Amino acid sequence: MSQATPQGVEASMPQQAEGCLGASDLPTLKATNGGKKKAEGSAKTKSPKVSTASAARLVIQRVETAILVIDAGPPEQQVSIGAGLVVYVCFLKEASVGTVAELVDLLFRADLLCLPNEDGSANRKVCLAQFPQDVDLLVVPQASLAGRLKANALQFHSLAPKPEAQELYRRFIEDLRAKAQAEAARVPGRKLRVEAGVYGNLQRLTFSSPGPFTTCIEI
Amino acid sequence: MSQATPQGVEASMPQQAEGCLGASDLPTLKATNGGKKKAEGSAKTKSPKVSTASAARLVIQRVETAILVIDAGPPEQQVSIGAGLVVYVCFLKEASVGTVAELVDLLFRADLLCLPNEDGSANRKVCLAQFPQDVDLLVVPQASLAGRLKANALQFHSLAPKPEAQELYRRFIEDLRAKAQAEAARVPGRKLRVEAGVYGNLQRLTFSSPGPFTTCIEI
Repeated sequence: MSQATPQGVEASMPQQAEGCLGASDLPTLKATNGGKKKAEGSAKTKSPKVSTASAARLVIQRVETAILVIDAGPPEQQVSIGAGLVVYVCFLKEASVGTVAELVDLLFRADLLCLPNEDGSANRKVCLAQFPQDVDLLVVPQASLAGRLKANALQFHSLAPKPEAQELYRRFIEDLRAKAQAEAARVPGRKLRVEAGVYGNLQRLTFSSPGPFTTCIEI
Repeated sequence: MSQATPQGVEASMPQQAEGCLGASDLPTLKATNGGKKKAEGSAKTKSPKVSTASAARLVIQRVETAILVIDAGPPEQQVSIGAGLVVYVCFLKEASVGTVAELVDLLFRADLLCLPNEDGSANRKVCLAQFPQDVDLLVVPQASLAGRLKANALQFHSLAPKPEAQELYRRFIEDLRAKAQAEAARVPGRKLRVEAGVYGNLQRLTFSSPGPFTTCIEI
């Protein structure tokens, strides 16, 4: 069964000067497991070595509008979207370029949106690639998603180191925009817009949701 | 390592007439595993039988303000909070009265809030029970959190049946309010307020967050 129990994290997150683990106040994690390195090959087992660690965590919310003000800066530092999805993303230690590709694919093929049926009786689920109307995405870097509760503290051992996570985030946005451009062209006149928060900056989020609808995806 | 992979769910959620799995458009799930009952005792194993299923899922977001309009109804159907936490909650099949007690305890003891240090250098994490200022909670029933992606569809096999989930939700709010009242009294003048959405109703959510800060907890 699916589990997201607070395992695999052993120490607290370093305290943050800029804002209590907000959108992107990402820590520079110290290497904490150097002394715990397993003696490889010292104990052979029958089962193959399979990593069960996760590579990324998403929380997705459907919204009608959302505004992200980065560093409470001037208007050009503000991004906003209309109807669509807010996608909070966090890269974990297992993340790679493949994770980015998987996330982009997932966001376009998963039935995360909905449309009323013609007879009004129900809604049908639709993926981003096949959604017939304009739809916007707002991506928010969200290190706090790596948090796992141990005793009373949220701990962040699974979080990818900042340089790697920052590069993966940059690539994620780039690939998401390329995919959106390609997919938008399949439905004449439809717009697929990708807006994004800035990795490592504090940002104020406001949104309005008709539902709300919140879902978590871990890969 | 912690995992929330889309396992353990085998069929799609029934389509919803009222709003695409919004805050509380909860399905009445059919019993789908009647034919798959394990032949108990037919194969003894050395390891004890331990359930690894989850009982509840929370997504928690720090907010400055949040407004929940239930069924787009009259003003008395609107609840709003100031600075505090929005807590989206979903009860799964393994949920019991004990789950409610565990969730209430967890929300008050986990270091989910933060305060600037006196020298302004950093923030320190604080739990609800020890937070020295007023703090509000807005609880939103959120069946969509049970969703696990299989192929392209979110599936909801782990969701608790509606009557049980509704009763657990009612109890959760009641116990949370009782705990808030008891805890508030420990700090003279401090207010701990619990507002809540209505289980099974569509509700429109608007919030503003300074961070944002989003975390997932599964028990």
